[in-house]
Amino acid sequence: MKQLARWRQFGGWWTRYAHDARSTKCEMTFSVFVPDGATAAPTLYYLSGLTCTDENFVHKAGAARQASSRGVALVVPDTSPRGNGLAGEDDAYDFGTGAGFYVDALQEPWASAGYKMESYVATELRDLVDGLEGVDADNAGLTGHSMGGHGALTLAFKYPDRYASVSALAPICNPTRCPWGVKAFEGYLGSVDAGEDHDACKLVAKHETGRFDSILVDQGAEDQFLVGDIDQLRPESFRAACDKAGQNLNLRYHPGFDHSYFFISTFIDDHVDFAADRLLNNNNKKHAAS
Amino acid sequence: MKQLARWRQFGGWWTRYAHDARSTKCEMTFSVFVPDGATAAPTLYYLSGLTCTDENFVHKAGAARQASSRGVALVVPDTSPRGNGLAGEDDAYDFGTGAGFYVDALQEPWASAGYKMESYVATELRDLVDGLEGVDADNAGLTGHSMGGHGALTLAFKYPDRYASVSALAPICNPTRCPWGVKAFEGYLGSVDAGEDHDACKLVAKHETGRFDSILVDQGAEDQFLVGDIDQLRPESFRAACDKAGQNLNLRYHPGFDHSYFFISTFIDDHVDFAADRLLNNNNKKHAAS
Repeated sequence: MKQLARWRQFGGWWTRYAHDARSTKCEMTFSVFVPDGATAAPTLYYLSGLTCTDENFVHKAGAARQASSRGVALVVPDTSPRGNGLAGEDDAYDFGTGAGFYVDALQEPWASAGYKMESYVATELRDLVDGLEGVDADNAGLTGHSMGGHGALTLAFKYPDRYASVSALAPICNPTRCPWGVKAFEGYLGSVDAGEDHDACKLVAKHETGRFDSILVDQGAEDQFLVGDIDQLRPESFRAACDKAGQNLNLRYHPGFDHSYFFISTFIDDHVDFAADRLLNNNNKKHAAS
Repeated sequence: MKQLARWRQFGGWWTRYAHDARSTKCEMTFSVFVPDGATAAPTLYYLSGLTCTDENFVHKAGAARQASSRGVALVVPDTSPRGNGLAGEDDAYDFGTGAGFYVDALQEPWASAGYKMESYVATELRDLVDGLEGVDADNAGLTGHSMGGHGALTLAFKYPDRYASVSALAPICNPTRCPWGVKAFEGYLGSVDAGEDHDACKLVAKHETGRFDSILVDQGAEDQFLVGDIDQLRPESFRAACDKAGQNLNLRYHPGFDHSYFFISTFIDDHVDFAADRLLNNNNKKHAAS
């Protein structure tokens, strides 16, 4: 693992790393914010949306302010393998490079070309974070935006022992029923049906899945992917699925807000707080038990 | 004047405008943040540094949070004319496009090609802001970063009747004595001597110049343009000039911080507060007198 850059912001330091990744068969980059004085800061993963790298959130969201104030570390991965030279991987903004969809591809050529972002985030990156100073990789939460909100919700349900908190900003809630998800699941998994195990609305209904005390979802009411002919996000489907499953959900609509980083930056503090409230309590419980 | 985009962030709206500018002989863009419910919000101009457009600050600084909290409008101009097709204007990052240096060029071909960013910001843009709803163009302050910090300090001293507050982040304090300034003044004005009227250290010494109750300057202690062989910023020269002139200066060094937007975003709240404290008092005085 090599250090690409280091920046001081608010009360802590960002470090950007590169490493040769097994899961994705390429050099991957990720960014980590560690608050000053942290010895075992809980870890909040932020999963980014389509077209993003690990850098957009770091530069635009302003999340380090609240993270340093609450003593939470931030981990920001990239959204796909890059540079593996696969024919067609750069042709579309919503499939291939920048669009890994947080699944492990089953279909060729994607499976052999390292499109395994589920394994990368939930296992390989987690093991790397475990080696970082000041960070407690065993006390982790997930959040994310759009495709990354889908990633946060689905990985939380699939690996409830690894994540004690989950929230999302304008997540793709029901990918088996929206164009982005259909394209991703047909391409990476071979069929939309195979995507049911990566659809938050389906996962929350499964009895073996984890339950969270609450899930926070923020949604811009004027989001360009929510309104109009094609609803890519379907938050109301997720509300119905949570209601049916008995999963508490705090779904908030925000008038005037769209799908951009202006929306993310406005509400990210609440997601840092949401994770901090749960992970710091978690920490307290561990300390009380030890 | 046409509206290019509109985004909600925190408690207010950004609007990005384009207009055909007299001073700069091209279409110019600028961005304005107006807090919700503002009827006559004081105006804080943010002048950007080399290579920036009106967009970098808007996307990266997170200033709208504190601006909406304090009821201050933000106005963010571009840094030079663009697209006038002048030979050589795109050749260097520190001269020509993106590097107008907040002066009115005297030398050809720059003078005829609209390199008049002093007139653009201090007069033409101010008149446009005067026509915006919710904003009080007569109650204004300046701040800025690097080349834009130089712009803020020098325009404040040159037009003290137009600006009631001035602060800067990592400003170029003494451009007649640093490579960036020497290049700009020789190119735009014909000589370094002609730049003395655009050098904050020289301007503060002039008796006819304005005085401010205080000037806030923040500086990253690990700024890559401060340390090393070539000090482009020279904050200590400005401190000495202010001391000699009896101008109160609050110059703060911040260990670990560099010249980037990570530095700007960390301290911008203090600059919004600094302007708000002065401009809102100004407002109060006006109201008390009326």
